[in-house]
Amino acid sequence: MENIRFENGALYLLDQSLLPNQEVYIAPQTKEDYFFAIKKLQVRGAPAIGIFAAYAMALLDTDKYELKKYLDSARPTAVNLSWATQRMLSAYNEGKDLIKEAQSIHNEDRERCCKISEYGLSVLNDGDGILTHCNAGALATSSYGTGLGPLLLGKEKGYNFHVFSDETRPLMQGARITAYELEKAGIDVTLICDNMASTVMKQGKINAVLVGADRIAANGDTANKIGTSGVAVLAKHYGIPFYVLAPTSTIDFNIETGKDIIIEEREPSEIKELNFREPVALPETKCYNPAFDITDGSLITAIITEKGIIKNPSKENMEKIK
Amino acid sequence: MENIRFENGALYLLDQSLLPNQEVYIAPQTKEDYFFAIKKLQVRGAPAIGIFAAYAMALLDTDKYELKKYLDSARPTAVNLSWATQRMLSAYNEGKDLIKEAQSIHNEDRERCCKISEYGLSVLNDGDGILTHCNAGALATSSYGTGLGPLLLGKEKGYNFHVFSDETRPLMQGARITAYELEKAGIDVTLICDNMASTVMKQGKINAVLVGADRIAANGDTANKIGTSGVAVLAKHYGIPFYVLAPTSTIDFNIETGKDIIIEEREPSEIKELNFREPVALPETKCYNPAFDITDGSLITAIITEKGIIKNPSKENMEKIK
Repeated sequence: MENIRFENGALYLLDQSLLPNQEVYIAPQTKEDYFFAIKKLQVRGAPAIGIFAAYAMALLDTDKYELKKYLDSARPTAVNLSWATQRMLSAYNEGKDLIKEAQSIHNEDRERCCKISEYGLSVLNDGDGILTHCNAGALATSSYGTGLGPLLLGKEKGYNFHVFSDETRPLMQGARITAYELEKAGIDVTLICDNMASTVMKQGKINAVLVGADRIAANGDTANKIGTSGVAVLAKHYGIPFYVLAPTSTIDFNIETGKDIIIEEREPSEIKELNFREPVALPETKCYNPAFDITDGSLITAIITEKGIIKNPSKENMEKIK
Repeated sequence: MENIRFENGALYLLDQSLLPNQEVYIAPQTKEDYFFAIKKLQVRGAPAIGIFAAYAMALLDTDKYELKKYLDSARPTAVNLSWATQRMLSAYNEGKDLIKEAQSIHNEDRERCCKISEYGLSVLNDGDGILTHCNAGALATSSYGTGLGPLLLGKEKGYNFHVFSDETRPLMQGARITAYELEKAGIDVTLICDNMASTVMKQGKINAVLVGADRIAANGDTANKIGTSGVAVLAKHYGIPFYVLAPTSTIDFNIETGKDIIIEEREPSEIKELNFREPVALPETKCYNPAFDITDGSLITAIITEKGIIKNPSKENMEKIK
């Protein structure tokens, strides 16, 4: 499933904010269209945001310096966004073909995802039960995705996986996006609440856990969607391999351990009100809503990148991928 | 807070399915009213279900054998339900006053909850951070409750606890009921999603975990709300004591291990649709929705009952409480 399509000189984006109930492709025209598509999560997932902004830089006939600044401000924390707009600005200054440059960024991401998917598939077996948390599929990247890549590639190669998708509270990316993507790809997927992961593991239904990553420290400690560290502890307890799939650009060798990764804290309304018909707690009830957590490198069986597989991530083992 | 009130010959039940937004008492009249109040979780929590069913057996003028069978079928996992209806049936056969018998069951539960709360408080310290899952408070039982009993009793005695309440998907008893009860009692409570338990434990915010139980096997394996076993695994990993608080009536010595406990499976719509403004997954997406899970006795620091504390629950240690 391609969420960003460049066809006959025009860009089309699958609006992720409407999934799974509506599948609508939008065709952004103005710089404001592009800005709000990023801001309002019509496009999400760091690689996808970068690709989308690159096309904006190529297609919009306006001052490129102003445009980069404007687009970057849509989601200031997404590193890939400013990285992609900077690369497009450099290409502009060098007089390169900007559409070709955007397509290169898009294609390079596809290639990275393919490599990660192939390495990921090499650690799985036909018939495996797989647990996933949050979404690191094609809709967050391009082509196969990272965390879901081995499943989508495996499907093409005739593998039959049985996937359990954690719904991933509070924003439900596992329900709304992962279960949707896998269902559409014809992969056997069962949606569960986050707190059911222990049960399906205990029942012997899970042979491997696959997740993505938002940032990885030099020792392998991994920041990913809230709940990931709990799944990793459970996997260790039940003797199930736990794999992190991410491009090497996610590894930040300047950060020594997970303790130094700053965790974004979000609004209580996401827990108490978001998408609920009525509030699920009293207005005065305090909420704690961290968006990510840190999974210790020691709980991770391997980090799977486009450059290869880092087994037993540690400072020493991580260095080898540099 | 009393959820079941017997006044002037009539029974009133606080409809827990409407909390925290509405506080409505219903007055069931027919056997169907009682059945669906149990089935649809207007009354929930093993002891409360038992008390409620006992009053049904006393108040409904119908064949008591048929009625017991009918009520028992409303929720298969809660042992207190069939225990209470059996006791009422025996009382009926012995020609006892059935209303007095139901009131005895109710009063005995109050006394048991007080004892459990006192034993529970004895393992806690002032200022402790506490994690709870689901709801085993006054609304699930009578008076103090079991899992929340030490917190409510402690509050009266001047203890200051800092409680984190797992929201408990899919039915949100932690958000809707536990956070509500503790907030109303003036106890410091913070609502988190289930998948945040690992993070607050890792951050050192939790000194003890308190949960209730729906059924306990002879070796200490404990059936409780889905997600409990995951919390127990996390507690073990982070070195935090994990306490199950339940009356001895919850212990089923006829069941050797948790493997023999039947787990109720509920409708996918609870995960995909319940209380959401719009579905969070495709209509064709499969869901697995077990209502309970089994926590191995080996993960439990102690089972706290009205008869005392069973440390390191095992077949041998459990026998001592008989």
